[in-house]
Amino acid sequence: MNHELIQMAHGSGGKLSHDLIRNVMWPAFANDILGQMHDGAQLTINHARLAFSTDSYVVKPLFFPGGDIGKLAVCGTVNDVAMNGAVPLYLSAGFVLEEGFPMESLRRIVTSMQKAADEAGVHIVTGDTKVVEKGAVDGIYINTAGIGQIIDGIQISGQNARPHQDIILNGYLGEHSLAVMSERHGLEFPHSVISDCAPLNGLVAELLAAVPQIKVLRDPTRGGLATTLNEIASQSQVGILLDESRIPVSPAVQAACDILGFDPLYMANEGKMIVFVDKEYTQEVLRVMHQNIYGRQARVIGEVIEKSPGKVGLRTQIGGVRLLDMLVGDQLPRIC
Amino acid sequence: MNHELIQMAHGSGGKLSHDLIRNVMWPAFANDILGQMHDGAQLTINHARLAFSTDSYVVKPLFFPGGDIGKLAVCGTVNDVAMNGAVPLYLSAGFVLEEGFPMESLRRIVTSMQKAADEAGVHIVTGDTKVVEKGAVDGIYINTAGIGQIIDGIQISGQNARPHQDIILNGYLGEHSLAVMSERHGLEFPHSVISDCAPLNGLVAELLAAVPQIKVLRDPTRGGLATTLNEIASQSQVGILLDESRIPVSPAVQAACDILGFDPLYMANEGKMIVFVDKEYTQEVLRVMHQNIYGRQARVIGEVIEKSPGKVGLRTQIGGVRLLDMLVGDQLPRIC
Repeated sequence: MNHELIQMAHGSGGKLSHDLIRNVMWPAFANDILGQMHDGAQLTINHARLAFSTDSYVVKPLFFPGGDIGKLAVCGTVNDVAMNGAVPLYLSAGFVLEEGFPMESLRRIVTSMQKAADEAGVHIVTGDTKVVEKGAVDGIYINTAGIGQIIDGIQISGQNARPHQDIILNGYLGEHSLAVMSERHGLEFPHSVISDCAPLNGLVAELLAAVPQIKVLRDPTRGGLATTLNEIASQSQVGILLDESRIPVSPAVQAACDILGFDPLYMANEGKMIVFVDKEYTQEVLRVMHQNIYGRQARVIGEVIEKSPGKVGLRTQIGGVRLLDMLVGDQLPRIC
Repeated sequence: MNHELIQMAHGSGGKLSHDLIRNVMWPAFANDILGQMHDGAQLTINHARLAFSTDSYVVKPLFFPGGDIGKLAVCGTVNDVAMNGAVPLYLSAGFVLEEGFPMESLRRIVTSMQKAADEAGVHIVTGDTKVVEKGAVDGIYINTAGIGQIIDGIQISGQNARPHQDIILNGYLGEHSLAVMSERHGLEFPHSVISDCAPLNGLVAELLAAVPQIKVLRDPTRGGLATTLNEIASQSQVGILLDESRIPVSPAVQAACDILGFDPLYMANEGKMIVFVDKEYTQEVLRVMHQNIYGRQARVIGEVIEKSPGKVGLRTQIGGVRLLDMLVGDQLPRIC
C-alpha cells in the first residue's frame, strides 16, 4: 500500500483518518481551537459562546430506508453542534451537483432537509450550488456547517472523562450502516433495518437542563462506538471498560452482522449519542432519556476506569476483556 | 434542453443559478434570513451580530497562476463574510477527496489554505474529510464556511442602493477567469495573466473604519460584475448606469477576451469588490482603497440612477446605452 496516495480508509473515521488529521491537517492548520478535537469547535465571539461544526455528505445510495442524503446532512451537523452542549441554530448548505442530476431528486432532497431542519428547530440560512460535468461527481454531495449557542454553564469536552463515571448510550447500534448497506447491495434480511438518522438536539437540551453536570457528549458516527470511545479515552487519558452484555444491538442487526462478519461496535450510527456522567446522576440521565423518542433504549454500557489510560476494553460475556482499538481499514465506505 | 435535469449553467452564478434558487431552494428553505440574498447570512446570537457564509470549491485545474483551490477556498469565503461588513474570524473546511489523490498535492493545498488564512487573520477551527472511490469525484473538492463579527454600527445590504450613489470598483476585471482558463486549456497569451484571488477583509475593515456610511458591498465572483450589479439593482429596485470608458480591464485580459470572444463584465473575479456610497464620501473611499495593495486601481465605474429600476445599463464609448442582463449560460464552468 502506498501511503502517499489517499486511500478509502482515510475517510473511515478510524485510524487512517486520524493519521491524516495528525500528519497533514494539524501541521497546516494548528491552532488551539482545532486542537480541541471534538465534534466541532467551541468559540467565543463578543461574549456569545458558540459551537461550529461541518461535515460533507457523500452517502451512497442517496436514498435509503429511514432517510436520505438530505436528512443526513441536516441531522449529522445538528448532532455535531449539539454534542458541544449547544442549541443548534443555523445551518449553511453547499451543494455540488453532477450535470444531468434529476431536478426531481434534488427537490426530494431539499424537502427532506427542510423537514429535518423543522424537527431540529434550525434554519438553513445560507448556501451555495456548484455544478460539475457528468462524471466529475457522483450525483450530489452536500456540505453543511452549523452554528449553535452553547448552553449557559455547560462545559462539554472529550477531555472531561474521569474514573468512575458511567457511560450511557441512547439506543441500538449499527442501524444506519446496515440500512445503507442493504440498500446499496440489494441485500434482504429477515427483518428490515431502518437507519437511526435523527436530530438529537432536543434530547441533548432536555438532558443538560436536567443534568448540567454531564461532562462528555459525543455521537458515534463513522468508526462506530469503539472508535469514538478510543478518542475520548485518549483525550482524557483514562481507561474505558464496556460490558458486552449491555451493548444494545437489535436482533435484526446482530443477525445481519453474523452473516456478514461485521461488528456493531465499529458500525456508523446517525442517531446515537454517548454520555459520560458521575454515577450519582446516572439514574436521572436514564430517566430523561427514556422519556424521549430517541432515548427509549438508553442504558449504561460501561464505565471509566483508572487503569489502562487511553485504552478501551470490552468485558466479554464469557468473562475476558478484549481490547477495542480504533477502526482499522474501512468496512463500509460512503456511509454518510 | 431538458430543464428538469441539472445543467452546467445551474452553477454559473447567472440566470439559471437564480432560477434554481428561486424554484427549488427557496420553496424548501424559505426563511427571512435566507431571503436577504446576500453573500451569506446576517445573524444575531446573544447580542453578537454575525455573518455566516459558505462556498464549495470545484475549480479545475486545482493549481493555476496566482493561486490554487486551497487559497481560493479561504479567500472566497473570507470575502463573502467581509462583504457583510464583518470581520471574518473562523472557518470550517470540508474536504471530499478521490481515492488515489496524491498526498503531496493535499499537503500543498492545505499549506496554501493556511497561508491565505494567515494573511486574512482567520483560523480554520473545524473540519471534515471524506474519501470516495476513484472516479466519484474529480480529485478534490473543498467546502469552507465562515463566521465573522459584523462591525458595530455597520449596516450592509444589497437593498441599500439608492439613486445618486457612486459605484466604485477596486481594480481590473476578469483576471481570475482568464488565469484558470489559460491553465486549463494550455493557452498562451502575449502577456501572462495571474488570478486576482486575494483576501479583501483587510481592505473592507479599512474602508468601513474610514467611511461607515458605506451601504452596499459585494464581490463580483461567478457571473461577473454585470450579474452582481443586476442582483443589487433588483434587490434595491434602482437603476444602475455604468460608464464603459471607466471599466478597468488590463490590456492582457482585453486582448485575450478579444481573441476568445469573452466579455470581462461577465467573467469571475476573486479579489474584486464593489462599493456603493453617497457621492460625498467617494473621494474618501478612493483614498483608502488606493493605499491598500488590493485597491490601487480603484475607480468610480458608474452610479445609481432613479430610472429603469432593476436594470443595469452600460454607457458605451460611442455614446449609446447597452442593457446588461445577468449571465445567461456559462462561459466557463468550474471557475471556483
